[in-house]
This record gives sequence, C-alpha cells and structure tokens, in this order.
Amino acid sequence: MHKHSIITLLSDFGLRDSYVAEMKAVILSIFPNVQIVDISHEVRKFDIRMGAFLLARAAQFFPKGTVHVAVVDPGVGTERRPIIVETEKSFYVGPDNGLLMLSAQRENIRHVYVIENRKYMLRCISRTFHGRDIFAPAAAYLASGIPPSELGPEIYDPIMPQFAKPKVLKNSIKGEIIYVDDFGNLVTNITDFDLKLLEIEEGDNIIVELGGEEVLLKICKAYGEVQTGMPLAIIGSCNFLEISVNQGNASKFFGVKDGEEIIVYKLGNRLLRVEA
Amino acid sequence: MHKHSIITLLSDFGLRDSYVAEMKAVILSIFPNVQIVDISHEVRKFDIRMGAFLLARAAQFFPKGTVHVAVVDPGVGTERRPIIVETEKSFYVGPDNGLLMLSAQRENIRHVYVIENRKYMLRCISRTFHGRDIFAPAAAYLASGIPPSELGPEIYDPIMPQFAKPKVLKNSIKGEIIYVDDFGNLVTNITDFDLKLLEIEEGDNIIVELGGEEVLLKICKAYGEVQTGMPLAIIGSCNFLEISVNQGNASKFFGVKDGEEIIVYKLGNRLLRVEA
Amino acid sequence: MHKHSIITLLSDFGLRDSYVAEMKAVILSIFPNVQIVDISHEVRKFDIRMGAFLLARAAQFFPKGTVHVAVVDPGVGTERRPIIVETEKSFYVGPDNGLLMLSAQRENIRHVYVIENRKYMLRCISRTFHGRDIFAPAAAYLASGIPPSELGPEIYDPIMPQFAKPKVLKNSIKGEIIYVDDFGNLVTNITDFDLKLLEIEEGDNIIVELGGEEVLLKICKAYGEVQTGMPLAIIGSCNFLEISVNQGNASKFFGVKDGEEIIVYKLGNRLLRVEA
Repeated sequence: MHKHSIITLLSDFGLRDSYVAEMKAVILSIFPNVQIVDISHEVRKFDIRMGAFLLARAAQFFPKGTVHVAVVDPGVGTERRPIIVETEKSFYVGPDNGLLMLSAQRENIRHVYVIENRKYMLRCISRTFHGRDIFAPAAAYLASGIPPSELGPEIYDPIMPQFAKPKVLKNSIKGEIIYVDDFGNLVTNITDFDLKLLEIEEGDNIIVELGGEEVLLKICKAYGEVQTGMPLAIIGSCNFLEISVNQGNASKFFGVKDGEEIIVYKLGNRLLRVEA
Repeated sequence: MHKHSIITLLSDFGLRDSYVAEMKAVILSIFPNVQIVDISHEVRKFDIRMGAFLLARAAQFFPKGTVHVAVVDPGVGTERRPIIVETEKSFYVGPDNGLLMLSAQRENIRHVYVIENRKYMLRCISRTFHGRDIFAPAAAYLASGIPPSELGPEIYDPIMPQFAKPKVLKNSIKGEIIYVDDFGNLVTNITDFDLKLLEIEEGDNIIVELGGEEVLLKICKAYGEVQTGMPLAIIGSCNFLEISVNQGNASKFFGVKDGEEIIVYKLGNRLLRVEA
Repeated sequence: MHKHSIITLLSDFGLRDSYVAEMKAVILSIFPNVQIVDISHEVRKFDIRMGAFLLARAAQFFPKGTVHVAVVDPGVGTERRPIIVETEKSFYVGPDNGLLMLSAQRENIRHVYVIENRKYMLRCISRTFHGRDIFAPAAAYLASGIPPSELGPEIYDPIMPQFAKPKVLKNSIKGEIIYVDDFGNLVTNITDFDLKLLEIEEGDNIIVELGGEEVLLKICKAYGEVQTGMPLAIIGSCNFLEISVNQGNASKFFGVKDGEEIIVYKLGNRLLRVEA
C-alpha cells in the first residue's frame, strides 16, 4: 500500500481549547510528513448527524487515499467501539456511532475494523479523549502506510444510521431541512434529481411549504436574480435544493431551523395563498 | 515561471461549515505540495470592504509568488467576472467586485485576466460556490506554475473600488474608522505620514473628535503608558493611527463602530472641552 | 543543532483579524519548510493564566524540537522583555510575563535568553505587535537551526508565575477550577495523584463542595456511566479531576466558572446534605 499524505479532522471540540492541537501533535509525532486539514470543529456538541453531514460534504472533494478522522463521541469510554472504515477511496477513523457512515457509504465500504492493537495507540489511554489517544494515532499510522488489519480485527456489524430521504409523491416532494449554514441558507435533503422526477427545473417557480407558511419561489441560477433581501430557491453546491435570501439570512427570514419539514409543490398543482 | 508554494484563503464563510475545507480539498487534489494559510474566514457576510482591508493587511507580509484567493462574493452566479490579478509580487484570485484591488494596487498591477478556460475549473460548476469550483482550482494551477494567460483573456476594466482617504486640512485631519479589531481597537485610515504633515508625532497629545465627543489623547509608544482602562492613541502595526484602551475595548469605551468619522486636531489649535 | 520543523502558535488574537496570518506569513518568509500548528487563538484577552494552561496542555504532545510561540501580551511595548526559553525538549518564544513558564518548567529549563539582536527581527518594529515583528521571526530562525544565543544574551531572572496547587488535607483536598472547556467541563488542579493520597480511586463516590453546594458524585470511567444530563467526576485527559455532566454543561449546571474553589471529601468523612 502506498503512502497517503492527507489527514482531515472533524469534531465538536471548538477551537478555543487545545484538544484539536493535541490531536495534531500526536499525528505529527508519528508521521511528520502528513498534511492536516480541518473540516470543521464547530459541529454542534454531540450532534452526530450534523457531523456526518459536514464530513460527507467535504470528503467527496479530497483525493483518493485521504484519511478522515471524525470525533463526535458522546459515548467515549463506554462500550462503543473505535473503528476504521476502509472504502474504495478513503479511510475513516472514529467512533462506531454512525458518524462515519453517511460519507463512507457513498464511496463503497470495503471493510470495517475495530481498533484494538495497543501498539498503535498512545501509551496512556484517557477516559475522555479517544480522539487524541486512539483515533489520531490510528490515522497517522494508516496515513504512513500501516494496513488497517494490523490495528484490529474486521467487524461486520457497524452501526448504520438512517438519514431521512425525501418522499417524492405525484405532485409534491416532502423533505427536510438537513442543515442551516452560517449564511442562514436552508439546505434540504431534496436533490436536483428528485426535482426532475416532478419535471421541475431551474428557472421554474415552485410552491414551498415551510415553517407553517406557503411561498412562491423561483429556482434561480444566482442569488442576484431576486432583489436584495428577497427569498429564492437554488440548487446548492452539493446538488441539494436550498432556500436562501439574497444577501440575507433565510433561517431568520422564515423562522426555520434544521430538522423541520419542507414540502415542494409543482406550480399549478394546487390552490394557493401566495406570500412573499 | 517558477513554482509558487503558498496559497492564502480569505472569505466570509466562517469556520463552522465545510466550505473552507472543500476549497482546500480541491487545491490539494490539484497541487499537493502547496502550503495553505488562512487569512480570515470571519469577514462580515458580504462585506467586501472589510475583506479588502484584511487581505491588504496580511498580503504585504507574504513572500513573493504567493497566490491569494479571496471570496466575499454577493454576486456569485451573476454576470460579475471571476478574475486573476497579477501584480509585481503576487497573484490574486476572486470575484471582480473590488475585493482584490486594495491589496493588488499596493503591489503594482501588471495584468488582469478573466477566468474562462473550463479546463482549469471543476467539472461541474455549482450556482453558489465559485470559491470551490472556479477560484480554488485557478489558484492551484497558478501555484503549480500554469501562466495566468492560460486561464483566460486579459481584461482592462476591472472594478476599482474607492476607499476613503483622510482629508488633511490645515490644523486637523478628517478620517474614518476603517476597522474595529477583536480587541476593540479602532483602526483609522489616518497614517503616521498624515500626522507628520501636521507636525504631530509620537509622544504628542492630540484632540480627537469621535462618537460625538472630544477627548484629549496621548500618542503613546505602548498601551501600558496609560493606566489600565484608560484611552490612548497609538501608531498601529500597519502605520495607521489607532484609538485604544489599555487592556480594554475602545469600541465599547467610545460607543463607536467602523465607518464612523474621526477628526484629529493638533493640540492648541482650538478651544476645547476636554473629557477623559 | 539539527533543524526543527514544527512551530506552534497560541494567542489571544482571535481568528477574525489578520494578525495570526501575518505571523504565519513572517514565519514562512524566513523558513518555508516549517509546519505551523495553531494551539489556540481564543485565549481570553490578556488572560496569561489561561494561555499558560492551554500551552502546557498541548505542548506535552508535540515532538522534541518543536518551537512554541505564545502571545498574550498586555505589556507589549513596555519594558517587559521578549524571551526565548530553551528546555530539554522545546523552545518557547514570547513575552517575559510568565506565560511560557508553566509549560517550560515541566520540560526542565536549560537557558533563558532575551531577544535583542535586530538582525533576527522584522526591519520595522511596530509598537503594538511584537508577535509578528519579534516573536514570529525569532521562532522561524530557531526552527531553521540558528542557536538561541545568537538572538540575545542569557538572563537569569525571568518572571516565574505562581500557579495555585491544591492543598491535600487529612480527609479532603482544597483545589480550584483552573479551566472551563468548551463543553463546560470543570477542570480542577487536583490530580489523580492527589486523590490517591486520600485513597480515593476511580469507581469511588466523593463529596464535592462547589458553588456553595455539596454534591455526591461518582468518579466514573466514562461520561455514559450516568444518565444524560446528570453530573459526575472523571479523571480528565491530562490526569486532572474534572467535574462534568453527561452530554451536558457542568459550568451551567453548577453555575461555576474558572477561578472558583472546589473541595473534595472522601466519603464517610463528614456528615452531609446530599444533592444531585
């Protein structure tokens, strides 16, 4: 196996504490030639789903052979297993709580291993920080070319999370706001592919039911197609339908957060009370 | 052209989302040997002026050949052009909205190109994220030694922003707070050179009109020259006059934000009502 | 002396301004082959003690030869000296205000030098930003192999801070909350070694006096040993006793901040009013 040279880090640690730096120190002590890239350390505390979403978004752009370490780990120190997921493209290292799997599944999972070999951990394993003591060294050794089977036995029952998929009905799609980004853009789980099933395309107007209201929105090619402060729909940078406000914050505009339902209707399919 | 090895990133994306990591992934996929340095991703959303200021501050310290990517881009997806600015020292990559020009002008602009060659973009160009799909790959190719003229034709009409310059009058200088840093220091657009025109030097007392009040301040050599909690003037780390509070927050002390006017009077030039 | 390749940065600058990037630019201009790792830039403004704690936590995991630059520097521009501390393991560069010493002492201090040689500083030294103008270049030259004695003369009177140590009494330990992390975990200055002196071990119950209340807590091996939302004690990732809430925030739960007193009683040693 050839040497890999990028390790990414994702966590809910924040950047104020020294935890992220401690993980980097451990990695660089084992494998100095690696390039470490932070995906995000501002995952909402203990929010495995948000972590899984951000990891899956970013991972697709990294080159083959990248080792992704992700730590959103409310079960640290309990029976939850530390695992390595080997896909056709990458390695994923982290807790066996579903965090790694949304991204790993998209790259076709080959093997899953449980990390057991103490030789590839820090000498002292703390109760509270497996990111530093187990996951960081495992990632560094993988990146340096140690085969994952050296770190522990293969397992066949990793936890596979169920992430909601939208329901495509005859004249509507019932989906969910899966993420609200820092601009306040509402990222849905409805893809451009789902929209095509209803023959909805860019340029069309749609009716969106969101936060208890119905609004008529255009699927724009650019935020700037509507006036500053006005809402729109747009196919976002990962092919999900997003609801935005030009130079504004759609989350505040609609009073909507992640986890809430969204229904998209093809225009002409129902009577409506339009608001804008 | 020799190989460049540093790419800097500046944006209004924040660090919570995966957008910055996606740009880094694209860059490292194209040119793995580059060193990526974040300037800031906490530019106020859509605030081109703040982005331009931070970019200009930091860029001057980077070595020759650095490629700076900056993305504060309210017009993404509209007719605004993606450009490369080649200066005597660096390359700048980003939207043609003035963001790059404050810094580029200081290094003498040689050529400006519009990025058009699809060969140097990601295969799919999203509607909302040209930072990842156009600017990041362009920067990686430039850093790897591809000449900018390969990426698109030269243009002669880039948008040149007008940033306010202070007015130096006979006995006063009328300037502006151009930036409030994280300590609450009030950075003005008045330089030590402007002060010299009025024969004001370090050690002198000045009268400052700020936030509707007039205060007598000393131009100190160190914050510690005044007592903790007291205001002072000081020549900041980029030779601009700054108003500070020793171990305190001048923005809160004076109730002043960026964009507000400041007038500096040479002491003795007018009657005054001193406050401290 | 061989070449070192890692420089770490710690400061109270925050990540919004360009200050951290300016330091990195200076370092990379002098020594391009170095790997720069951020420890934290979110140290509370002017809080030398918090900076010292985070630096000491992280530094122990970095490899031999690392150069640590730390800047929490309320006395910038005054008579406080810029220093280099050489230990058996690392170099520390920063202000002579105690910030570097908590960490340096643990690695056995060999020599302390004051940085005086202008040849190893930026050409212009600003009044307000020695991190960029003095400390960053010094670190880059040290990392590139310049011996510290080249930068200035040895000194024998660096400022040594007194950090509180816990008092171990016959049946109790009186300590302090020295840090509240981003999860709200209350890190105390009581070590597992101190607990052993009272024959308290993992798995035991203890009485903790904290924020004016007394609580019975178990010293757990994992947060998950108690129900979600319930408090516990745990030996943290640096062998300090920590008070936590499973998937919650102990600082909010107890209404306690850093600097406050904590008393740990061995169970059975006193009458108590238990709360949970």
